[in-house]
Amino acid sequence: MSAHFADRLLAAIRAKGAPVCVGLDPVYQRLPADLTARAGLDDARDLESVLDAVREFCRAVIRIVAPIVPAVKINSAFFERYYTDGVEAYFDLVREASAAKLIVIGDVKRADIGHSSGLYARGHLSDPDFAALDGLVAPDAITVNPYFGLDGIKPFLEVAREQSKGLFALVQTSNPSAIEVQGLTLADGTTVGERVAALVNTWAGGDGLLGDSGYSLLGAVVSPRDETSTRKLRAAMPNCMFLVPGFGAQGKTAEQIRNCFKPDGTGALVNASRSVLYAYEDTKYTQMYASQWERCVEHACRDFVAAVASIVPD
Amino acid sequence: MSAHFADRLLAAIRAKGAPVCVGLDPVYQRLPADLTARAGLDDARDLESVLDAVREFCRAVIRIVAPIVPAVKINSAFFERYYTDGVEAYFDLVREASAAKLIVIGDVKRADIGHSSGLYARGHLSDPDFAALDGLVAPDAITVNPYFGLDGIKPFLEVAREQSKGLFALVQTSNPSAIEVQGLTLADGTTVGERVAALVNTWAGGDGLLGDSGYSLLGAVVSPRDETSTRKLRAAMPNCMFLVPGFGAQGKTAEQIRNCFKPDGTGALVNASRSVLYAYEDTKYTQMYASQWERCVEHACRDFVAAVASIVPD
Repeated sequence: MSAHFADRLLAAIRAKGAPVCVGLDPVYQRLPADLTARAGLDDARDLESVLDAVREFCRAVIRIVAPIVPAVKINSAFFERYYTDGVEAYFDLVREASAAKLIVIGDVKRADIGHSSGLYARGHLSDPDFAALDGLVAPDAITVNPYFGLDGIKPFLEVAREQSKGLFALVQTSNPSAIEVQGLTLADGTTVGERVAALVNTWAGGDGLLGDSGYSLLGAVVSPRDETSTRKLRAAMPNCMFLVPGFGAQGKTAEQIRNCFKPDGTGALVNASRSVLYAYEDTKYTQMYASQWERCVEHACRDFVAAVASIVPD
Repeated sequence: MSAHFADRLLAAIRAKGAPVCVGLDPVYQRLPADLTARAGLDDARDLESVLDAVREFCRAVIRIVAPIVPAVKINSAFFERYYTDGVEAYFDLVREASAAKLIVIGDVKRADIGHSSGLYARGHLSDPDFAALDGLVAPDAITVNPYFGLDGIKPFLEVAREQSKGLFALVQTSNPSAIEVQGLTLADGTTVGERVAALVNTWAGGDGLLGDSGYSLLGAVVSPRDETSTRKLRAAMPNCMFLVPGFGAQGKTAEQIRNCFKPDGTGALVNASRSVLYAYEDTKYTQMYASQWERCVEHACRDFVAAVASIVPD
């Protein structure tokens, strides 16, 4: 049996010296021109062509970032957009990333009432129990939505514990209108997001969920807003690793992200998707490498690692 | 172009004289014994056998209920549990139910930040734009999670409007611990669920979203608790059809559900899953039909229709 998810994640972060994660959010229309110009990958109206291009691109990105970062996050929305065939591509890339020794986070944002959550947990967190699916690998962790309360999350916790996998519950998301629900002020003066944070930390501390590192297999998705609120969330969730979206293209800077870490430099995994994935659209990199898109991605990934490293407390 | 979703739904309800929906939540282990004993369907460890049995069962249920009810709800969790192959079975059954002239609700509970929500909306609500997927049909409506606020929902609204499809946002779910988040009391004395209800009603009233019936393409999932809170939610969401889970097996009675309807008898679609699907486990029906499970399901479906009809205001 493999080690506790948080312990594995922390070890991988230490090994790479970088608490970061690259998000695979591939959009065919934005793939490198020399890739989508190639025969067999060049027909935007042909599903096989599109998904082959997406696979090829993501495989290259996985190869490029695997020596540099400990983890990738694969957003299922970008694959479900292509129906059943897209879901196959999603699982293909989970396997590729896993084979490249990356920790793989399936960004699926699932949740339902208990029994149904248990089924989602099986299908998204546990490796298949059917010979026909031999070779299919489930992610190391997935994201879940807390709107149902504990009994919508519990079945995920059970499967994750059994399978040495992990979870990240959405606490504070990066979109502007998140405040409409997460930012509502409660009778006691706290916000919904803060209350959800407290709940998630309590759930995270449940029987058998904490690893040797002191972190739980249940982490939290936290997109920092301002320094004060981020400090509050960090203090409210000592049991939880934070998965921090929005670095780069979504506009969060390293400075804003600093407070997601504990003073010992642990506690957060910072994700960048578009700023790394589409670095070949950025003149900063094309000036150096022209159309060598792989080198642009690699340089952007190293810049991302350096930017985060510069703010991690030590 | 087909009619507005709410208008279509109301017409279908009128045509069948029954504001009800049957939920397809198939669990292999509970399928009728004479089905899972059949060669080719009898191996619980073989994925093809399991999914063929699930398909066969659900197809039969679709055939049985199609003349009686206007709609079915297919919960994706029960299919994603079987990974990629399960997702294929999900879309197969969406097509089957659609071909049987049922309104099909994909109970997928998706949501993400804007751009990703747009991709989920494409992949789950719009019929495919690829020749390779010819024959694949998307549901008429899906369920969505409101935790992201409006910009997580807006892309779904746009695709739904464009495609004459519908949505149901989770407002009050049926699980006991839903109150941990949805039941939190806000500074103004209302609850999170009530505030979400007000938001959903506002979103539902957006430009071009209301049909001739006065209902929006955006409805709400509302599991009634007590009479007072249900009346409040009904008053807070005049624009919204309610999708009401939990009839039968989840313990809600027709009486509890009455207040989900407006005084004119419209406004709700009541769902029963297990109490109809697994009627052949209920001695009430097996006493009449022994192992003729199809007749048990049909009788339970008619009983469900009658129970709901008896409480709809007229």
